Amino acid sequence: MGVGLYTHCFLPTSSTIPLRSNSFLFNPFTKSLQTHLPKKPANFSIAQASKCSGVEEMETHQGNSMSLIVDPHKIDPQLLQKMEYDALVWSSLHGLLVGDRNSQISGTVPGVGMVHAPFSLLPMPFPESHWKQACQIAPIFNELVDRVSLDGKFLQDSLSRTKKVDAFTYRLLGIHSKMLDAKKIEEIRLGLHRSDYMLDEQTKLLLQIELNTISSSSFALGCLVSELHRSLLHQYKQYLALNPERIPQNNAFTQFAEALSKAWSEYNNPRAVVMVVVQTEERNMYDQHWLCTTLKERYPFETYQVTSIKKTLAEIDALGELLPDGTLVVDGEVVAVVYFRAGYGPRDYPSESEWRARLLMEQSSAIKCPSIAYHLAGTKKIQQELAKPNVLERFLENKDDIVNIRKCFAGLWSLEDSNIVNDAIEKPGLYVMKPQREGGGNNIYGDDVRETLLRIEKEGSEENAAYILMQRIFPALFPAILVRQGISQKHHVVSELGINAAYLRNKTKVIINEECGYLMRTKVSSSDEGGVIAGTGVLDSIYLV
Amino acid sequence: MGVGLYTHCFLPTSSTIPLRSNSFLFNPFTKSLQTHLPKKPANFSIAQASKCSGVEEMETHQGNSMSLIVDPHKIDPQLLQKMEYDALVWSSLHGLLVGDRNSQISGTVPGVGMVHAPFSLLPMPFPESHWKQACQIAPIFNELVDRVSLDGKFLQDSLSRTKKVDAFTYRLLGIHSKMLDAKKIEEIRLGLHRSDYMLDEQTKLLLQIELNTISSSSFALGCLVSELHRSLLHQYKQYLALNPERIPQNNAFTQFAEALSKAWSEYNNPRAVVMVVVQTEERNMYDQHWLCTTLKERYPFETYQVTSIKKTLAEIDALGELLPDGTLVVDGEVVAVVYFRAGYGPRDYPSESEWRARLLMEQSSAIKCPSIAYHLAGTKKIQQELAKPNVLERFLENKDDIVNIRKCFAGLWSLEDSNIVNDAIEKPGLYVMKPQREGGGNNIYGDDVRETLLRIEKEGSEENAAYILMQRIFPALFPAILVRQGISQKHHVVSELGINAAYLRNKTKVIINEECGYLMRTKVSSSDEGGVIAGTGVLDSIYLV
Repeated sequence: MGVGLYTHCFLPTSSTIPLRSNSFLFNPFTKSLQTHLPKKPANFSIAQASKCSGVEEMETHQGNSMSLIVDPHKIDPQLLQKMEYDALVWSSLHGLLVGDRNSQISGTVPGVGMVHAPFSLLPMPFPESHWKQACQIAPIFNELVDRVSLDGKFLQDSLSRTKKVDAFTYRLLGIHSKMLDAKKIEEIRLGLHRSDYMLDEQTKLLLQIELNTISSSSFALGCLVSELHRSLLHQYKQYLALNPERIPQNNAFTQFAEALSKAWSEYNNPRAVVMVVVQTEERNMYDQHWLCTTLKERYPFETYQVTSIKKTLAEIDALGELLPDGTLVVDGEVVAVVYFRAGYGPRDYPSESEWRARLLMEQSSAIKCPSIAYHLAGTKKIQQELAKPNVLERFLENKDDIVNIRKCFAGLWSLEDSNIVNDAIEKPGLYVMKPQREGGGNNIYGDDVRETLLRIEKEGSEENAAYILMQRIFPALFPAILVRQGISQKHHVVSELGINAAYLRNKTKVIINEECGYLMRTKVSSSDEGGVIAGTGVLDSIYLV
Repeated sequence: MGVGLYTHCFLPTSSTIPLRSNSFLFNPFTKSLQTHLPKKPANFSIAQASKCSGVEEMETHQGNSMSLIVDPHKIDPQLLQKMEYDALVWSSLHGLLVGDRNSQISGTVPGVGMVHAPFSLLPMPFPESHWKQACQIAPIFNELVDRVSLDGKFLQDSLSRTKKVDAFTYRLLGIHSKMLDAKKIEEIRLGLHRSDYMLDEQTKLLLQIELNTISSSSFALGCLVSELHRSLLHQYKQYLALNPERIPQNNAFTQFAEALSKAWSEYNNPRAVVMVVVQTEERNMYDQHWLCTTLKERYPFETYQVTSIKKTLAEIDALGELLPDGTLVVDGEVVAVVYFRAGYGPRDYPSESEWRARLLMEQSSAIKCPSIAYHLAGTKKIQQELAKPNVLERFLENKDDIVNIRKCFAGLWSLEDSNIVNDAIEKPGLYVMKPQREGGGNNIYGDDVRETLLRIEKEGSEENAAYILMQRIFPALFPAILVRQGISQKHHVVSELGINAAYLRNKTKVIINEECGYLMRTKVSSSDEGGVIAGTGVLDSIYLV
């Protein structure tokens, strides 16, 4: 689903918004202050420090007076320039890259037309308790997706109205239906998911934006940004009131590679490969390359390697075949695992060829990440269905799990609920209209919500099935410095925390069910498609002062 | 001196030249065959192997018949495409980068307009004995440069005619002369050198092309290419008759960083910085960034870091000052070490400002890498003077050292030697005319040698002092695949082996005098300015078959 998923909040011009009042509270815990206090570096220049405006004076236990910056907008311009330069250098040397849109071939040929991935210069603060909450429920969501995927009737029934107005859902359901008819069983099931959250400022609730069960991306770049931030915070510790030790560990891509390799092992054919389903052009290719490289290097000196091949849906249609025993062979290679980094939206299926490829893979014995059922379980309509009373109870037994999952559900409603529709017409600012369509940038906010709802009501069409209504989330704003195309700009941004999670099971047991690092992203406004990858958060007790 | 130093051999169209007959001899040593034999990988596909044309059948001691490729031009196109792709991905993820000429700002802003550094897909073979010879004499050359640098009169006298016709040498000598007059003593002396060699095919002699005492570059990229080759050879060991273990270790940039940091320590001011003198635009910036990053990360958790700053000569003129005690302060920072990655050629001195900066640095107590005397000791004229009978003996005592150094001297003559000039007019193909000017691309070959010599003779000018004559070296040709801008091409190339070396001493003792890795480069023809960085060699007993 790419990185373009910041679709939840609409912000007026950032400069008109006051900072969150308690954004940069002093940490009251003396212990942590003692622990994280940076030593005065030998080459620390008083002249340099005094250049920094907007700093906080801190009286340490040693009685030294140190000036540490808490607001990134108040970093002295010269110091900022140094930090930006160092961050850009770090990105280049450590593969924090994307293909540059200004280069025509940068989406097809690696190694040319590269530019650093966009990033926030410093990590975004996030409360530790909410962070932990998001991590702890990741395995429950994994389990939930798995259970939902096994209930073919639930998926078909829940999406029965959606498919009438959404051609893409219709085609997915068609394949799913064929699998049900054929009584196809996926014994080995692999999910590489990402659940996205925002923290509602007023209620202090961690609320789920969506659960991505297909093609969740940028996890490798996210890990790299975490490392970049750790490196910068170490290097500039004499100036910044940020503690590098408080940046959570982020091993998303090694853990995802581990999950893929374990799935590959389960398939139990050492000659088989992992096939990455890719788009024809992919400027986020380095994120994928990190995963495949890590996968390959897991057994560098063994007698075999987990080889991955990349194919588009059209290539799979042209080069793929199903052996009588269900083995998927593409371009002469037996495929153990199909890993989708394409195929999540209608644009990836320009002709019947791509749909044939999707069906072929689904019919095969290859492990699909995701299967068609996992894919459907991640749709917005299913998210909304699961939020209805007593639905979670159909899939989960443990009451605590149900409570914990439900706690992070935002208000989610079908457009068949006339009370809610009327309320949304009256107070459109409190709602978001989300189309079934995947990928960011399609959501409807503000007065457009009212207008769209009124039009649908008037036309009396089935179009209402194409949308769900969701409670509008208002996260806190933070000052940030966003770096894109080598240029940095000051903004006030909101953050979205994505928690990655892997799930793998075979016929008899769950092999992996774990949280796998995170992708923290920032966004200036809803028009800022995809936002900037911040890549890391820092827990809120990071501040040293 | 950049990477543009392939100035020695002129090749006719490569395709018309037959391959060196013994280029890919089978290795007769059964022992090495046994040691390096790759295991048959579990996912080795017979179908894949049989696709490879131009392979050699090998009967192993285990009785398996394996087909391993020895000639890169005979790699099956599909396999080649895979290897190229993997190499490009590797380059991107591991910082094997340069600024792209197609991007306007890629020489000034890091992180934008990046493209992989050009490389040869596979390492170039080189005889182990000659490789060792080049490594062993590196410390002697270091010592020689140091001794020559102390003999101000020798430098001034040797270059006295050159300076009349070469304005750049004139200016350098002017600064040098001022230092002599002021009795300026450099107690701490740091050299980061590279001695370039070619192997003459007919005589099997390792002959020195030149000794770079200023701004020798690309050592970091060279190390990365070594790693790239090691990685590719591991990955494709089932297809290639090349043993990754035979690629010599290459730690050039960590060793150079070590030398810089030790020099910094010798300066003994923990608040001082290393100043890198840079060009205004530098597309080879990532090579420099690797060095500075390594330097910085040497003491990541200590109370100080070796900080480096980058300044152009014009900036140094504008922001630099000399304190009464000789301390160099630039932009408010005390400079411990001046490391030149600019200033080696006349183009870096467009105005008097740059010359003022050079003088300012030379007058200071900062450690210069190189000092003006080290710079002059690396000029072509001095190279030619040192090759005269009994000159080495003025600087070195150890007879073995003298023999070993002299062994790698090619024929080098002044244009005052009329016998040689006449011979060169008669047989211009056996000579190269080298102008005093630094940087590649200025050498004169073939019939142009005759014409230039005749013109100078006719004009009777002093212009002959601007050149030296050197024996033409004819190295062996090897088939290679060169990758540039994401595109690979088959060529026959010659290789140039550069051996890096570091030297550091203070008033009382030599602290470092060692060989520091290598830079192996390939070249298609003399017009191929800068050539391709092959980055690594493999010792000639690499072949498995």
